[in-house]
Amino acid sequence: MTEARSVIDLIRAKRDGRELTDDDIAWLIAAYTAGEIADEQMSALAMAIFFRGLSPAELRAWTDAMVASGTRLDLSGVPAPTVDKHSTGGVGDKVSLILAPLVAACGAAVPQLSGRGLGHTGGTLDKLEAVPGWRARLSGREFVANLATVGCVICAAGDDLAPADRKLYALRDVTGTVESIPLIASSIMSKKIAEGTAALVLDVKVGSGAFMRAIGPARELAETMVRLGTAAGVRTTALLTAMDTPLGRAAGNAVEVAEAIDVLNGRGPADLTEITLALAREMLDLAGIDADPAAALADGRALAKYRQMIAAQGGDPDAPLPEATHKRVLPAATSGWLMAMDALAVGLAAWRLGAGRARKEDPVSATAGVICLAKPGEKVEAGQPLLELRTEEPGRLAGAAEALAGAVEIGPEPPEPRPLVIERINIERIN
Amino acid sequence: MTEARSVIDLIRAKRDGRELTDDDIAWLIAAYTAGEIADEQMSALAMAIFFRGLSPAELRAWTDAMVASGTRLDLSGVPAPTVDKHSTGGVGDKVSLILAPLVAACGAAVPQLSGRGLGHTGGTLDKLEAVPGWRARLSGREFVANLATVGCVICAAGDDLAPADRKLYALRDVTGTVESIPLIASSIMSKKIAEGTAALVLDVKVGSGAFMRAIGPARELAETMVRLGTAAGVRTTALLTAMDTPLGRAAGNAVEVAEAIDVLNGRGPADLTEITLALAREMLDLAGIDADPAAALADGRALAKYRQMIAAQGGDPDAPLPEATHKRVLPAATSGWLMAMDALAVGLAAWRLGAGRARKEDPVSATAGVICLAKPGEKVEAGQPLLELRTEEPGRLAGAAEALAGAVEIGPEPPEPRPLVIERINIERIN
Repeated sequence: MTEARSVIDLIRAKRDGRELTDDDIAWLIAAYTAGEIADEQMSALAMAIFFRGLSPAELRAWTDAMVASGTRLDLSGVPAPTVDKHSTGGVGDKVSLILAPLVAACGAAVPQLSGRGLGHTGGTLDKLEAVPGWRARLSGREFVANLATVGCVICAAGDDLAPADRKLYALRDVTGTVESIPLIASSIMSKKIAEGTAALVLDVKVGSGAFMRAIGPARELAETMVRLGTAAGVRTTALLTAMDTPLGRAAGNAVEVAEAIDVLNGRGPADLTEITLALAREMLDLAGIDADPAAALADGRALAKYRQMIAAQGGDPDAPLPEATHKRVLPAATSGWLMAMDALAVGLAAWRLGAGRARKEDPVSATAGVICLAKPGEKVEAGQPLLELRTEEPGRLAGAAEALAGAVEIGPEPPEPRPLVIERINIERIN
Repeated sequence: MTEARSVIDLIRAKRDGRELTDDDIAWLIAAYTAGEIADEQMSALAMAIFFRGLSPAELRAWTDAMVASGTRLDLSGVPAPTVDKHSTGGVGDKVSLILAPLVAACGAAVPQLSGRGLGHTGGTLDKLEAVPGWRARLSGREFVANLATVGCVICAAGDDLAPADRKLYALRDVTGTVESIPLIASSIMSKKIAEGTAALVLDVKVGSGAFMRAIGPARELAETMVRLGTAAGVRTTALLTAMDTPLGRAAGNAVEVAEAIDVLNGRGPADLTEITLALAREMLDLAGIDADPAAALADGRALAKYRQMIAAQGGDPDAPLPEATHKRVLPAATSGWLMAMDALAVGLAAWRLGAGRARKEDPVSATAGVICLAKPGEKVEAGQPLLELRTEEPGRLAGAAEALAGAVEIGPEPPEPRPLVIERINIERIN
């Protein structure tokens, strides 16, 4: 009861706009992780934080406590400078598959502990699992060993990586308390700090297909995360990038792996290549490596590194990727310039085709997905194929097509070109 | 999962300031009562309501749903007009013990389903249980029968009276979501509406010893409850009354019963008598009964009715009340006019002496309490006894005395007299 009393006092303090101390927060997170604070108390506190926010000091303490709930990995034995990337999630965002081997090919070590997708944006692990034989689970020892020898690892986070975040995220997911910038920032950053990377580039997506639809909150999230990383001793930079249109042409799992390989072969879509190179330059800059990632892409070093990374986790880089049994093409209704292809609608269609999951426990289809056969800025003719739907279950085609109604806009004039990388956020401590 | 999804949508809607429909709310409360909505979801919603409030339509639907979670009593078989009173709780507030028999003596039927105390304000049932033999639990049949024959009943609410409120209140109590005017209003009014009374007078306390310390929120709570009662077909009036000083001179259980009997014998403290008569006049007015409660008090009819009410529930009105084994007197530090005697401090002292409980499950002491030997407005001499502490456990005396440090103010001039009844709130529907 004394403990329950304390929690109630802390909930009330936050609710009424008073600041919690470092000790309050350390106790709260540790006690919640240990099961000593009830879920109904933590969800009420999360909702109070939704309304009241967290001060910078509270947020640092909150993030530190989440890191301290598990083990912070020690990557000091890795000879190369470590640098990672995190994306807040977008439709067709297969950048990690290209970027990790690309940056490793330039001499950095990329320790990417990654997640699975939920909802309309896919997860990197789900995508890589479309590669025959590839496995997402590595032991801590394998992780460090692969990082040292290959130079890049993409694998699932272990149970001991910020367990408080896992528990709190599951709670927020069912209590309407996900959409809180400090809670999102601390969730992402606690995992990246615990991962042990020395540097981090954040790809904060903005637009219809992103978690943040408006530039203001996206900028706030990016700045908050950059400050948190910097405070924890992780050199951190963020790029705000556009997510109104799917990245590249493919949204799904195997289809995205195939497109990533296209980029590594030097024949990928321009937008995907551009954003990957921009992120690679940021990562190399933070790692203190003077190298040209475009060259590593052009000369095949990045592709070789990708093949090595896949093989190191049991995957066969030469095995053909699985293909869907059912396809349907959606044609252009009129002729003109393709003005927009809504990322959210494409993500939702891919999800309905089986590429994504509604619940954490659900399996995903390796082959399901959507291919954008044209992209905004291209000229199209009425009847020309615009979108290709792929699935194992033909019963899913109608629902996916429905999700795409109104997603495509065709106009008489070409659209204004829009920048893909909108803003770069880096905070330098001068003292 | 489909249900979990719906709850999340409703939490988000409230969180983002959108209005819930009657159907949403009916479903929410029914599903929560049935255990189909998790506590962590309901507490997040309660916190969102703390910040966003409930619109009048939402609040009506919420209250209706709480009533509908159990059985609404049918008092149509009671020959006299039914009218009840509810107090938001104050220190020394033993008004119900006098008021119910007084109003019954004037010809109304008073169906008072009452509660136990938690914290520094006592509960009517706890007080009456100091009467040897008296029992708080009646069956629904006994309740209606006593109401018809005696004219007044004070007893515990049955498990089927607004069970949603019981469950929700217990949740709010541990999640920092008690202090929400719409949730307080619907909690009180759902029980009173379900009780079946045709009319209701609310005694909304304002001041240091009350739940509402400021007039603004107290007025808002009173108006909200009056509107809810009126909308549900219960004729409802509220009085805002002062609670800066304990009501009467006694705070505890047996000591308050003794003081109530003093009032019924025509020799009670002036403030207690005044407020009881003011509430009685409101109740009789709502019941459409033209009678003078002061006469019923003066001629012994109210006392006779009290004795009948106690006896009908197994109590012996002639048995001596239990007395505390340990007493300590606190004297006046200086001479002068008694300016203030803080209600919260006196309530806290009584609670520490054993009269109140910290947890719902705790027992209370029948004899513990505080006697105010002088009241604000009286002249006192240095060394004169001001407060008497009573307990069974002498170890509790020091803590109680500590709670009273600074509670008493003595000045050179008499205090400005302050009105006891501050405001009357009645909302007439004109259409």
